[in-house]
Amino acid sequence: MTNYNPNDTIVALATAHGSSAIAVVRLSGSNAFKIVETYFYSKFQKKKTLKDKPTHTAHFGLIIHQEVIIDEVLITIFKGTKSYTGQDSVEVSCHGSLFIQQQLLKLFLNAGARMAQPGEFTMRAFLNGKLDLSQAEAVADLIASNSAISHQVAMQQMRGGFSSKIKLLRENLIDFAALIELELDFSEEDVEFANRKDLKDLISKIISVIQKLVNSFDVGNVIKNGIPVGIVGKPNAGKSTLLNVLLEEDRAIVSEIPGTTRDTIEDEMTIDGVLFRFIDTAGIRTTSDIVEQIGVNKALEVIRKSAIVVYLFDSHAISCGDLKNEIELLKDHIGNSQLVLVANKIDAENDTDLKAEFSEYPEMIFISAKHQKNIEDLKKKLIELFDTRTIDASDTIVTNARHANSLRNAEKALIKVNEGLKSNIAGDLLALDIRYALEELGGITGEVTNEDLLDSIFTRFCIGK
Amino acid sequence: MTNYNPNDTIVALATAHGSSAIAVVRLSGSNAFKIVETYFYSKFQKKKTLKDKPTHTAHFGLIIHQEVIIDEVLITIFKGTKSYTGQDSVEVSCHGSLFIQQQLLKLFLNAGARMAQPGEFTMRAFLNGKLDLSQAEAVADLIASNSAISHQVAMQQMRGGFSSKIKLLRENLIDFAALIELELDFSEEDVEFANRKDLKDLISKIISVIQKLVNSFDVGNVIKNGIPVGIVGKPNAGKSTLLNVLLEEDRAIVSEIPGTTRDTIEDEMTIDGVLFRFIDTAGIRTTSDIVEQIGVNKALEVIRKSAIVVYLFDSHAISCGDLKNEIELLKDHIGNSQLVLVANKIDAENDTDLKAEFSEYPEMIFISAKHQKNIEDLKKKLIELFDTRTIDASDTIVTNARHANSLRNAEKALIKVNEGLKSNIAGDLLALDIRYALEELGGITGEVTNEDLLDSIFTRFCIGK
Repeated sequence: MTNYNPNDTIVALATAHGSSAIAVVRLSGSNAFKIVETYFYSKFQKKKTLKDKPTHTAHFGLIIHQEVIIDEVLITIFKGTKSYTGQDSVEVSCHGSLFIQQQLLKLFLNAGARMAQPGEFTMRAFLNGKLDLSQAEAVADLIASNSAISHQVAMQQMRGGFSSKIKLLRENLIDFAALIELELDFSEEDVEFANRKDLKDLISKIISVIQKLVNSFDVGNVIKNGIPVGIVGKPNAGKSTLLNVLLEEDRAIVSEIPGTTRDTIEDEMTIDGVLFRFIDTAGIRTTSDIVEQIGVNKALEVIRKSAIVVYLFDSHAISCGDLKNEIELLKDHIGNSQLVLVANKIDAENDTDLKAEFSEYPEMIFISAKHQKNIEDLKKKLIELFDTRTIDASDTIVTNARHANSLRNAEKALIKVNEGLKSNIAGDLLALDIRYALEELGGITGEVTNEDLLDSIFTRFCIGK
Repeated sequence: MTNYNPNDTIVALATAHGSSAIAVVRLSGSNAFKIVETYFYSKFQKKKTLKDKPTHTAHFGLIIHQEVIIDEVLITIFKGTKSYTGQDSVEVSCHGSLFIQQQLLKLFLNAGARMAQPGEFTMRAFLNGKLDLSQAEAVADLIASNSAISHQVAMQQMRGGFSSKIKLLRENLIDFAALIELELDFSEEDVEFANRKDLKDLISKIISVIQKLVNSFDVGNVIKNGIPVGIVGKPNAGKSTLLNVLLEEDRAIVSEIPGTTRDTIEDEMTIDGVLFRFIDTAGIRTTSDIVEQIGVNKALEVIRKSAIVVYLFDSHAISCGDLKNEIELLKDHIGNSQLVLVANKIDAENDTDLKAEFSEYPEMIFISAKHQKNIEDLKKKLIELFDTRTIDASDTIVTNARHANSLRNAEKALIKVNEGLKSNIAGDLLALDIRYALEELGGITGEVTNEDLLDSIFTRFCIGK
């Protein structure tokens, strides 16, 4: 993408694809006004100009090509630095017919615009200093946000909350570097300007802030991608049925998600505003023995990836003693994940007996997936165990793997600096690691960047943004 | 719908459903500004007003609810009669996240807006005199238009081309009625103000204009709904394969059409910009004999509904003599439709022989549906037979069944008037039929209307328009 000239005038459909009341075609670039003016007429079919109009004004008129009226449109203009991209921009709001959308794109392309690459509008906003890089990345997160918490975290990042934290870290680090380099300049004179103790304190403080951010990525990842819940159990325990029941009720929301990503999110659902991601072991080859099943790599992987492991069993087919053994085996693999025991296939007759049989496990949930009984209890339990709504979104939470990675690199470098300070290593060696840490932090906000990085970030955007 | 108060402030998502760069939420009604102002803040989080701003201006700001920033938005305001609906209106352009779209709708509903009914924005435009009824109906046609010709016809209707024709007809008819009534007033004095010959000429002229419009509906219907093409033939002639091949190549376009109408349009396709609607007889119970098959009511129905009948046969299984018999039988049912003979299952070996065998039919097309051979020839033929692009869209073409029906009723009434004139019937009897014709014409543009009619028209719109 970075091979494309950022002064080209780009065009794209900005609204969702489909026929609708209205659709918006967006242009940005030095010729945006001129290109639209080629086809823009008043309702009396007289040529209309745009460039002489004030920014942020909307103008009704006709788009006419070779004497054929393509549409009655409303055109809003945004001038230079006042626009989203920082360039002259035009939004053409037309009737939401697929035919009209296509015709308008064709006309603007003919008049010299080119199709925008994914994220190219936002990339221009970054290149023109309207947003820093982490803010630009948050725009894509915001559009993809599907729960209150992921929305809030993306919003905070887009509005610069995260950037200002990173900038503060860099400033502290630059101050620190200045002190070290001062020492370096005068090192032959054996003068120690910076108090070594103060230096150590400062670097420790910086490291601890970075560590807190790195650690927030666990939560951030869950916020962005959903809380991973593994459903495990013997064959015929009813895993698929349970999964279908859970997802069925959520179908309306699932079906709203664009088809392109359907494959990876079919097992996502929002319960009470919190996003869960069900990791299906139903498709995994299972054997009749839970021990063997855990031996299967895939099942182990699921358990390791899950924040919550739902162990589902057929309440008719297992005694409390058997269960106890299986739980012991499970516990070896479960780590810090939460375990939820779910007895399936209950019915009116065995209900009381079952509760007596498994009275050792007061937290156990008794359901009938098939008859959709007590499913609400399970949902309530999931929410209880991991309610992302209780996370304070005003805390800075890292949700982006690239940022987490840069922070980890910076952390490693600074730990080396800290060790160097302790072992009285020479200032010029320290400076190398400090510079490396500064670069990693600068990469997050885009103060230090390169073309490949920009490409890999912006190609993940949707077209039109 | 007409039970709803037209002064309520209504709200709806105006852009297509889905996550995208931007989405637009639209409000209309006396409280539109006030409702949006409830949540609208500057980027410095100070309350912002809208009602003091000039119409057609766009304002950047934040939507904030209970100290949570819902989104950074661009709000465009439209004042009173200057808006689409003729009421104060606001368009909120937000990031196209499903979550944000839902949150904004919720907030505006909480602040006193109600969800718009389908077509309610356009209905208000009609009620406030911004559009007449046939123009309002054209808005829905325009959004649904999927070919150059259907787009042009809808555009012409939306811009009042059809309405002005109807209005002119009504004016002529009113003039005529005035003359008749004048005669009526003085009838006892045996004065004949209006020249009977002139009256007869005038009414004949009006009738002929109406008849031309009524006749244009055949074309109009084809423009709007596609050219009906029936594919008939014996079992195993390859009808399903041909249909799939034809549609397969068009899949990209088909998949763009909203799922809700998928059922009825799966067999539509655009060839070279012209819309064809394939009427599938593949699913109809077939027998091994074409005569018996034609006897099946459904197949007959398909043939009757088709402008083009494609007769497909297995070139290996039929001789020219047999074919001749079958065509004779087909011709009895085909009426004015065009017949296209298609020999299927050709291969390199029999190609020349076949052409010799069927040399009596130089127009015959030889294809292999299975190997997708010569499909282009068939497409070219279909275009040749019925190229809607050659229709002059600047001619007034009736595409709406309601309009066609009203015109037919008016025509009938005026023919009675004409007969009355010939038989020197009394003026007051003529006046009744003239009034009836006037009402029918007035119903088209909405000068004469009723609530049920409005309901049935606007409920067919999409929400947000």
